[in-house]
Parts: sequence; C-alpha cells; structure tokens
Amino acid sequence: MTKAGILGGGQLGRMLLQEAVNYPVDTWVLENDTECPAAHLCHHFIKGDIRSFDDVYAFGKNLDVLTIEIENVNLEALEKLESEGIKIFPNPASLKIIRDKILQKQFYQQNSIPTPEFKITNNRSELNQYESFLPAVHKLATGGYDGRGVQLLDKKDDLKLGFDQPAILEKRVDLQKEIAMLVAMNSKGETVIYPPVEMVFDKYLNQLDFQLCPAEITEKSLWKAEAIALSVVRQLQSPGFFAIELFIDREGGVLVNETAPRVHNSGHHTIEAHFCSQFDMLWRVLLNYPLGNTDAILPSVMVNIVGEPDVKGEVDYAGLEEVLQIENAFVHLYGKKETKPGRKMGHVTVISKERQE
Amino acid sequence: MTKAGILGGGQLGRMLLQEAVNYPVDTWVLENDTECPAAHLCHHFIKGDIRSFDDVYAFGKNLDVLTIEIENVNLEALEKLESEGIKIFPNPASLKIIRDKILQKQFYQQNSIPTPEFKITNNRSELNQYESFLPAVHKLATGGYDGRGVQLLDKKDDLKLGFDQPAILEKRVDLQKEIAMLVAMNSKGETVIYPPVEMVFDKYLNQLDFQLCPAEITEKSLWKAEAIALSVVRQLQSPGFFAIELFIDREGGVLVNETAPRVHNSGHHTIEAHFCSQFDMLWRVLLNYPLGNTDAILPSVMVNIVGEPDVKGEVDYAGLEEVLQIENAFVHLYGKKETKPGRKMGHVTVISKERQE
Repeated sequence: MTKAGILGGGQLGRMLLQEAVNYPVDTWVLENDTECPAAHLCHHFIKGDIRSFDDVYAFGKNLDVLTIEIENVNLEALEKLESEGIKIFPNPASLKIIRDKILQKQFYQQNSIPTPEFKITNNRSELNQYESFLPAVHKLATGGYDGRGVQLLDKKDDLKLGFDQPAILEKRVDLQKEIAMLVAMNSKGETVIYPPVEMVFDKYLNQLDFQLCPAEITEKSLWKAEAIALSVVRQLQSPGFFAIELFIDREGGVLVNETAPRVHNSGHHTIEAHFCSQFDMLWRVLLNYPLGNTDAILPSVMVNIVGEPDVKGEVDYAGLEEVLQIENAFVHLYGKKETKPGRKMGHVTVISKERQE
Repeated sequence: MTKAGILGGGQLGRMLLQEAVNYPVDTWVLENDTECPAAHLCHHFIKGDIRSFDDVYAFGKNLDVLTIEIENVNLEALEKLESEGIKIFPNPASLKIIRDKILQKQFYQQNSIPTPEFKITNNRSELNQYESFLPAVHKLATGGYDGRGVQLLDKKDDLKLGFDQPAILEKRVDLQKEIAMLVAMNSKGETVIYPPVEMVFDKYLNQLDFQLCPAEITEKSLWKAEAIALSVVRQLQSPGFFAIELFIDREGGVLVNETAPRVHNSGHHTIEAHFCSQFDMLWRVLLNYPLGNTDAILPSVMVNIVGEPDVKGEVDYAGLEEVLQIENAFVHLYGKKETKPGRKMGHVTVISKERQE
C-alpha cells in the first residue's frame, strides 16, 4: 500500500484524509498540535515541526509520496527528499516560487502570465519612493496568510502602514470580480480544470464571505481565465492540485492574483457539487490514478463558518440546528477546540438547480 | 463534545467515521482486529470483543451514546448500559428482537406487519414435518450473515440440507422484486424515509449484485412499502437507522423479508446520490440534530466489489483504473488487507440523470 504523508494537520488535511477513506493508502501526518483537526484520521500521526529540517526529513524518508496542506514547510528537507526519490507534489521548485510573493510575481512576469503591475520593496524607505504608484496593495513576501500580511495603501499617508520587510507593492485593480480556477496536473503532465468559482470577500478580514460556482462571467473572460490557469500550472511544471486566484477587471481583463499549490478553500464546494472533489483529485495525482471528472453535478454556494470578531475560547456552534434543517445544505465542522476572531471553523455548501442565496 | 462509540470496525464503521468528520464528536471504536477498516479513523480505538460483556460494558460506561455496525454484540452489556443512562441507538430491546429471526418474525406477526408465512423449527426432526410447506427458505435464527445461514429447500430431498438448530422455515414468495426501504427515527419519534432501493441479487452467494434507486415499482406498491417500513420502525420503538428489506410479489403485494437496525449495504448510494447520506443521518440521530433530507440529487446504481470466488489472500484491485475513468462513478474501497470469496471489498456508485447500467 502506498505510504502518503501530509505536512500539516489543519482542516485541509482533515478533509484530504476524509477522502482517503475511499482509497487503499497508508496515511501519515506531521504536525506539532496533537489535537489538530487531522490528528485522529490518519494511520500514523507524527508529532513534529513542519518547519524543521530534521522533522520533515525524518518524516518523509520512508514514505512514497508527500504533499502539503500549508506552504510554510521546510523546503530544504523536501529538496533533499526529492533528490532521494520521494515523490513530492507540489514539487519543491514550484513551492519555492509560490511561497515567496516576490518570486511568484517574477515567475508570472517571466512567463508572460498577466498579473497586476508591481514593485518590489525590501523595506519602508524603498516603499516611500512609490507614492505615485498608489493606490496599491502591500503584501509581505513571506508569512502572510488569510488576510494577514496584506495592507491597503490608498494615499501617501498610508505609506507608514506598509511593511518594513521584503514585500510586493501591487497596483490596485479596478475590480469587477474575483474568481478562482482549480487545476490538477498528474505525473504525465495531463491537466484537468474545474468550472470557475466566484469569490465574495469580507472587506474587514479579507476573508472569503461566500462563493458561487459556476462564476457568472463572460465566455471571453472564462477562456482567458482557463488559459491563464493552465499556463500557470504547466509553467510551474509540478504535479499536484492548484488554486489560481484571478482578478477580472472592469474591461473583462483577467490577471493572476496568486496561486496556491494545494487544495484550497475555494474548492470546498467540489465535495458535494462536483463528480470529483478537489480532495479526491489530489489523491488521484498522489496515487497515480486517472484524473477525475471536474464537472458540476449542480451549481453551488459555499459559505465559511468563521470565529466571531469578539469571541475567543471554547467553540460553540450557534445556529447549527437551523443550518442542519436547510434541505440542500451540507455542513462541515473542522473539530477545532478553540475559536478565534476570523478563524475558519467550518463551512457550509448549498447545492441547487436554481441559483439562489 | 459528545462521546460516541461504535461496536465493530468494519466498512460500515469506516464510512460512519468518514461522515463523523463533518461533526463535532469524539469517536470511539471497539473491535478485536487492530487492522480493521475503521481502526485508524476514530479518536479512540479500543481493542476488545464486541461479544464480551466485560469488554462492551467497559467500553460503553464512559460514553454518551453507542451504536452498532453489526448485530452480533453483547446484548446484556448494552441493557445494563442503557439502564445506567447511556443512550443506545438502536436500543437493546429492538436489537434483541431483530437479531433472532424467530423473535423478528413473531414481532411482525404480533404487529400485523405483512411477512411471508413461516414455521419455527428447533431441529431437523421438526423441520422434517413440514414437507408440505415446501418450497421454502430455511434461515438460522441467529448467526446468519451475508447469505450464510440461509438454505433453499425446494423439495423433500432438500430437507436434509436444513439446519439442525433453531431456525425459521419461510414459504417461498413468488417474487417480482426485492426492495429496501431506509428509515431513520430520532429520540422525539420523528421519522424520515428514503426513496425505495431495488436490489438485484447474485443467486450463488445470495449477495447483492447491484441496486438501483429509485426502484421501479408501482405507486401502490410504494405506498404499501412506505407504510410497512414506517410501521416496523415505529413498533420497534427505537431511535436509530433501519433498513427494511421487502419482497414485492407477482400481484404487487409487499411483505417484509427482514430488518437491519443500522446503516446498511442497501444505503451506500445515499453517500453521493442523496442530500443526506445514511451515515450523516445516523449521526444526526446519535447527536440529537435535526433529521436530514432524504431526497435524491440524482438517480443512482450501486455495485458491490466482492472477493473473487476462487481467490483468497492479499488484495489486488484489478480493473480499478478503468472504474476510476468512468465520469460519473464514485469508488469506495474498504481497506481490507485480505480478500476472501464473496467478501465485500468496496463499492461503486454511479449517478446519472438518465437511467443506465
């Protein structure tokens, strides 16, 4: 039986293991938190730091294939493991590009992939030179996650809010919509692409408020989005599962915002709404099975359940009874012991023949 | 968090735990085989014998709610646990009736639930008196499972094939179809019922060959089947999930074959084809959540993957690649290490707008 390891034990690992139940695979998880959402769902839980060379190397060296559920892992260990013949999807080279926003933006530029105009700023004094570039978004090169490490800079006064560390200053796009394209590539270089997902964000936390699939976009924008998403994955030259977040501007132009080299929040609706879910698809890549069918069974809406802004502590799912009574809703709770403001605690997918909210 | 225990760790436990991932619940499994299909998917795996009073009592006494994935468990321990306030769904009283085919048949009779005519035979000499009752089916009162403990007796000569232990001799029904009705009842006595499932059996192993949902039966037969299935569950007076297997005779009459007080092979298609799967539904009962929606998203066909007649030993999933390429098929493999003739190794569900096989 294939031995497959996951670096990280959060909700993405949890749902990946939930899908692993359907396949003959021996599952391993590396994670420091023994009470993490994925801890009890694998064959072998190894307590350890995914950022430590020694922990990642020791974890991976007897496995057949490794994947990640978070980008912030020890890259050097993965590079060594790859050189020793362990399959790592996404591969370390693509992970290296993606997890540094400066390298990621340069990758788009070098491969003629449309992305918003940007400047590299290594510190605040470099940032201060770009007053004329505003309004813009300042994004930390590394360490940002779920809205942290992102700062809107509209006018000169805002420059002092910028980061004094390596970052990207990205020109604000006159947004019509934000969408995500989900793509999988297997070891043979074959790709599949899902219908577009439309994302609506909470402005305060920069977290997803809800999402629709399929996105309501013009056919021309869809063609562009598909071509760009496939181009990103093919240029990254890595098997795996990828979520490419895209901006659609007022003129229908399509620009890459960023890429995640893993299963992604924007793909949760695929569990019930599509023939092959993102988690199933990643297992097919990891286990070298044929890629699955990305078609939707029905249109869907997905809503994250996040921690209330003012609440911290033991979790309490208020309103759960009501949601469980919705006839076409599917509830997923991630089993996190503690809630924090904005923390992802679960999600709900609604599928329906009629588009409704 | 509710502590929920499952007696048994086979594929039904496995799929029940797969669905538990969506709910906040602390899961416990009691099972002797540490490599069983469900062993690695629970928070707490307890090695022990589900037929032992001590093991079942020790397992259950600190839990909030218990369920079963096989009927052959220690009933006395469950009765004691129930008397001490542990919730047990199905309750021990209903389990006692169902797992003895003699008590089960008498229960139908006492509650005016249509079932094929039968005789009780305690040994072969009693059986030999019923030559004029043939053709009939001889079924062991206890211990039968998946076609074992069932013997067709067509003519006098066959009587020597009958069981020399307590058993039911059931008159052969002139069958049109076999269907299953799936019903859930919660602690308030509320019930939900799924669309009928049509079952096609392999005559050799008496195992399910494939099943269709919804069954193609007349409206009148459907009404009878629904009324009978609900009546069975209400008279059993137990919360839980129930599969009622029914015969439809040539005249459209509906008769109960037997009842299973648990999630069931005939409900596997509900995972993808229905809004609320049988496993989700049982969790809603166990955790006291609102009952779910039994409607089909799409019609479905379900096929069991069983061990080849002549093969015993390490598992090899021949043809898996081909099945994974079917666009609307969902594959479930149960992770059993060894195959045996007729052993259930997995299942495949196909969902489609058009009825096809």
